[in-house]
Amino acid sequence: MYELGVVYRNIFRTDRAVADALAKFGSATVHEAMGRVGLMQPYMRPIYAGAQVSGTAVTVLLHPGDNWMMHVVAEQIREGDIVVAAITAECSDGYFGDLLATSFQARGARALVIDAGVRDVKTLTDMRFPVWSKAISSKGTIKATIGSVNIPVVCAGAFVTPGDVIVADDDGVVCVPRALAAKTLEAATQREANEGEKRAKLASGVLGLDMYKMREPLEKAGLRYID
Amino acid sequence: MYELGVVYRNIFRTDRAVADALAKFGSATVHEAMGRVGLMQPYMRPIYAGAQVSGTAVTVLLHPGDNWMMHVVAEQIREGDIVVAAITAECSDGYFGDLLATSFQARGARALVIDAGVRDVKTLTDMRFPVWSKAISSKGTIKATIGSVNIPVVCAGAFVTPGDVIVADDDGVVCVPRALAAKTLEAATQREANEGEKRAKLASGVLGLDMYKMREPLEKAGLRYID
Amino acid sequence: MYELGVVYRNIFRTDRAVADALAKFGSATVHEAMGRVGLMQPYMRPIYAGAQVSGTAVTVLLHPGDNWMMHVVAEQIREGDIVVAAITAECSDGYFGDLLATSFQARGARALVIDAGVRDVKTLTDMRFPVWSKAISSKGTIKATIGSVNIPVVCAGAFVTPGDVIVADDDGVVCVPRALAAKTLEAATQREANEGEKRAKLASGVLGLDMYKMREPLEKAGLRYID
Amino acid sequence: MYELGVVYRNIFRTDRAVADALAKFGSATVHEAMGRVGLMQPYMRPIYAGAQVSGTAVTVLLHPGDNWMMHVVAEQIREGDIVVAAITAECSDGYFGDLLATSFQARGARALVIDAGVRDVKTLTDMRFPVWSKAISSKGTIKATIGSVNIPVVCAGAFVTPGDVIVADDDGVVCVPRALAAKTLEAATQREANEGEKRAKLASGVLGLDMYKMREPLEKAGLRYID
Amino acid sequence: MYELGVVYRNIFRTDRAVADALAKFGSATVHEAMGRVGLMQPYMRPIYAGAQVSGTAVTVLLHPGDNWMMHVVAEQIREGDIVVAAITAECSDGYFGDLLATSFQARGARALVIDAGVRDVKTLTDMRFPVWSKAISSKGTIKATIGSVNIPVVCAGAFVTPGDVIVADDDGVVCVPRALAAKTLEAATQREANEGEKRAKLASGVLGLDMYKMREPLEKAGLRYID
Amino acid sequence: MYELGVVYRNIFRTDRAVADALAKFGSATVHEAMGRVGLMQPYMRPIYAGAQVSGTAVTVLLHPGDNWMMHVVAEQIREGDIVVAAITAECSDGYFGDLLATSFQARGARALVIDAGVRDVKTLTDMRFPVWSKAISSKGTIKATIGSVNIPVVCAGAFVTPGDVIVADDDGVVCVPRALAAKTLEAATQREANEGEKRAKLASGVLGLDMYKMREPLEKAGLRYID
Repeated sequence: MYELGVVYRNIFRTDRAVADALAKFGSATVHEAMGRVGLMQPYMRPIYAGAQVSGTAVTVLLHPGDNWMMHVVAEQIREGDIVVAAITAECSDGYFGDLLATSFQARGARALVIDAGVRDVKTLTDMRFPVWSKAISSKGTIKATIGSVNIPVVCAGAFVTPGDVIVADDDGVVCVPRALAAKTLEAATQREANEGEKRAKLASGVLGLDMYKMREPLEKAGLRYID
Repeated sequence: MYELGVVYRNIFRTDRAVADALAKFGSATVHEAMGRVGLMQPYMRPIYAGAQVSGTAVTVLLHPGDNWMMHVVAEQIREGDIVVAAITAECSDGYFGDLLATSFQARGARALVIDAGVRDVKTLTDMRFPVWSKAISSKGTIKATIGSVNIPVVCAGAFVTPGDVIVADDDGVVCVPRALAAKTLEAATQREANEGEKRAKLASGVLGLDMYKMREPLEKAGLRYID
Repeated sequence: MYELGVVYRNIFRTDRAVADALAKFGSATVHEAMGRVGLMQPYMRPIYAGAQVSGTAVTVLLHPGDNWMMHVVAEQIREGDIVVAAITAECSDGYFGDLLATSFQARGARALVIDAGVRDVKTLTDMRFPVWSKAISSKGTIKATIGSVNIPVVCAGAFVTPGDVIVADDDGVVCVPRALAAKTLEAATQREANEGEKRAKLASGVLGLDMYKMREPLEKAGLRYID
Repeated sequence: MYELGVVYRNIFRTDRAVADALAKFGSATVHEAMGRVGLMQPYMRPIYAGAQVSGTAVTVLLHPGDNWMMHVVAEQIREGDIVVAAITAECSDGYFGDLLATSFQARGARALVIDAGVRDVKTLTDMRFPVWSKAISSKGTIKATIGSVNIPVVCAGAFVTPGDVIVADDDGVVCVPRALAAKTLEAATQREANEGEKRAKLASGVLGLDMYKMREPLEKAGLRYID
Repeated sequence: MYELGVVYRNIFRTDRAVADALAKFGSATVHEAMGRVGLMQPYMRPIYAGAQVSGTAVTVLLHPGDNWMMHVVAEQIREGDIVVAAITAECSDGYFGDLLATSFQARGARALVIDAGVRDVKTLTDMRFPVWSKAISSKGTIKATIGSVNIPVVCAGAFVTPGDVIVADDDGVVCVPRALAAKTLEAATQREANEGEKRAKLASGVLGLDMYKMREPLEKAGLRYID
Repeated sequence: MYELGVVYRNIFRTDRAVADALAKFGSATVHEAMGRVGLMQPYMRPIYAGAQVSGTAVTVLLHPGDNWMMHVVAEQIREGDIVVAAITAECSDGYFGDLLATSFQARGARALVIDAGVRDVKTLTDMRFPVWSKAISSKGTIKATIGSVNIPVVCAGAFVTPGDVIVADDDGVVCVPRALAAKTLEAATQREANEGEKRAKLASGVLGLDMYKMREPLEKAGLRYID
């Protein structure tokens, strides 16, 4: 796929209200609501605990050890976006630090998701600019080779088209395609609707075995109890 | 080994007082007290820092991507237990989240130790329900295949028989066989007895070289000092 | 290289003022100031977030599963040192815990950097004795084989000569050779000199594309914008 | 993206002559001809050395530990296809063995590329049915959950649309999008055109420094020679 | 578990005829015949392709970097045994080379399975003494600390009791408990009985979909075909 | 350490006869002869089995994804050299293929040892030009940034000074410092002197326990035999 050396200025972002509303459900519920697909690999970890965001993806494709395009993608950021950075090969260098974060934040970015390394994590934590990354590394990068901005990319095993919704929290990162975002929001809302009731039952000691009526199917599957 | 499709309801738990008393020593001291064996692999990490627990093991054997038996094991939990979950193959899916944690906690479980992934870690942290796991992942699981409950399992490289004592903290997870628990408690207690004195000496600048009388054996081993 | 069974008592430490002054720049800036070399592998992680230190290296070479030389190196520590521990083969055992930390701290050590495992991390965190390590593990070690103290070592991919400066923070660990320390301090100081101004500009929405005058070189490199 | 539970019967395969012609160039040259993109992760390894193939992709999306869809994809194979199997989460189970290979081969498949495990590798080697996989594992799978056939998938970090060309050899696996296949073939052909001449020169002792006229740019970049 | 410092001289080996007969089925079929359990982790790889063996386990527990007990276990080997070596912590050192292989082979051992490293692999290959290991490494070991021989061990995630049957080939290593060996042999024999017929059908182009009557269950599961 | 942008033309190579003579002992014996130090990490693997070489090191330091300096180092190769390539950060790209191998071979190089990836392995195997590497990858590199040639480097955890001896075989790669080469050759020769006799004894069934007189020290260490 990967068209190199291009910057798409106009992308079709998911409806803002839908993109924003997905944050509160978190990556696990959203991923379930999509039919258990769309997740990035679990090696993608937040640089600090507790951040939970959603936003529209602007994408950038970078080369190993080269962060030149980070400055190019900065210009394409709009309020409510999350930058998704893919690399053309495995690399753990620190592509992103506090200066770029200042710029991204000023442009309205909510987070960075990068399949490589990040640095200045102490300052980023103080700034409350969340990053999900494969590594933390002081290793700097050069600015020698051009990649692309706002082309579809594969980031940590997930396919991300510009304008898709990214939902990220302590559990991981999920990408919701624009065409499925409204439907996914609805499904996530329904999933959560009766969670409070379930939680109350389980907290009172009711077993999932009974609440979900599992005893019969388990018996049919051959489960035997031995005293 | 692994008998599939069975649930043992009656297991021989280690004496409660012994199982409870091991927590305060932590995994490192308990492991030393056992002769430096019984540890799970160091990839087993707590979802939040600072938890330190011990309890009696109830075990569950699961298939990759399938958490059905988690509901079966919930019924077998008694006050003071720690659930130990093994998987029949490598898997990093999120087998366990806040609803199951609510149920486990209501049944009296103190922790989960799982050789796979966990999710909803933010909520689990708020609930103070500690989990030691191989991964954190939003990836959900299905309920299609039966495993077993309360059979001996291998979890993260350690052999765990139901009723054994599990000791877990920021350093890792150790399993103390029921038959050795009392003896291990005694040995751990002795190890710690003079730790305070040692710590005071070292804090005052006394060297381990002198405190442990190592200079002579080091010289015999051939150590040379060069000015 | 590796001379075994020797302890060098006299090493040439980097000038104290220089060694101390590097801490505030952090590992990323120092590594850039050196020309993007000297970093340890990114698998070296701090046991708690937020520590940022620099100091002069005293080195120790250990064998897998054997921490005997830790007591030997303790005697060679002077105020302001950081102990750098290399192992002759891959090992994740817990070589270092609270008693050794008490001793190291009493001798004036500021931190430990070890290409293996560490334990008692909860206590070490309470003591505010920072450690950068490859692993956390309860696994204890024996005291049977001698290594060396204050010989040059390779630690996590970086070459460290006793007396070099170690700079470590949440981003990683960098080693500054003694001969380059003053020059590196100067370069780091210059790098940071106009960072405040840059940050203010970026925070106001100015793009790196304009601030660094990248538009022309990017166009020359062939970057195309598509509306 | 990932539509679940569907089988697309009609896909647009790359022109047969083009797809077949790419094999002889190998994955490295083809990847260069595409502008250094399109590669799967280097953990994808052939089960035996020396196989070098190209073919049109038919894709299958599987769940962890479940190979049911392998039988579904078999029916969609045509002469000259290569099956590309993606999994919805990390899994190293052995999804594929000699019986399926017999079926795939009978249907005209040239190879399997799977982001998981494979088994019966001795028999597959005897059959000369090449597989590129993440793992080799005896671990069997179940047939309980449906995935999809011939939807676009992410396999080992590469985006593969059904009908794209797969080129695989000892160096790895590359995916050439259908729309770029003819152009890539042309570029690869040109790359190789003067390789023979270059090789002869280098074999005679001519240096790449001179053949590629690198001395001047290296000097400009600041390279210094020291005697 | 792990009793340290003991050598059990008398173990109950699985019936020789049963232990020997399992080799021809290979690890994948045997593992299926056991109900898909008993496998070692897939990181256990043979040092050369094509070996396929079965035998009765004699076990040895070693410490990291210490192969002293290898000489102790050699004495306990009888004709038809396979040595299974577990380590008390992660270690990739080369515990075993051509001299020990000569000794093991002279005592009647058929193979070594070790959750660590091995060396002299070229000579071992020439000797046709197969080893399944986690690593290949020139790194030598010392002889300083005692472990145990013929106690139950966990090796690469599998629980092995002395006298159990080990089946190993290019696909991996499986352990069959003594009590299940005869039953497993029977089940494996039945599994293979009609494999020839199945293979012939598949080779003629019959689909697994039809041969296994999967079309109806797939449709019930919701699979849709799209033209 | 790492001086960037320099090429040292004159290095002190280890005496040719000594460098050549070490090959036949192999990496394991040489590493033992040095006191069990000097090994590269075990992830360094040969691209084909059976190669066993020694030679004098010429070194090259490269940046991630950039192989420009490979052409610079080619000019510095003399008959009997082995090129040792280190990278300033983790990278698995394919830095080296058949054209460079043709050039290296024409200049007299015996092998390449690289802490990164290599490609064209099929052709390299046909050429019998052995490479020890961290990865095999089709991923190409650019030529944009200068590194250095013939400076001391850290390669896969080993410190290599230009002119040192490299010994590599199926077991791994070891570096023998120039100053220790003659002594190491002597020690290796002595180690092997009585290996033939030992092998004959062990082959006849004599136990290492007796040959090495281990029974008494084992008993002293507390080993107990249980019938």
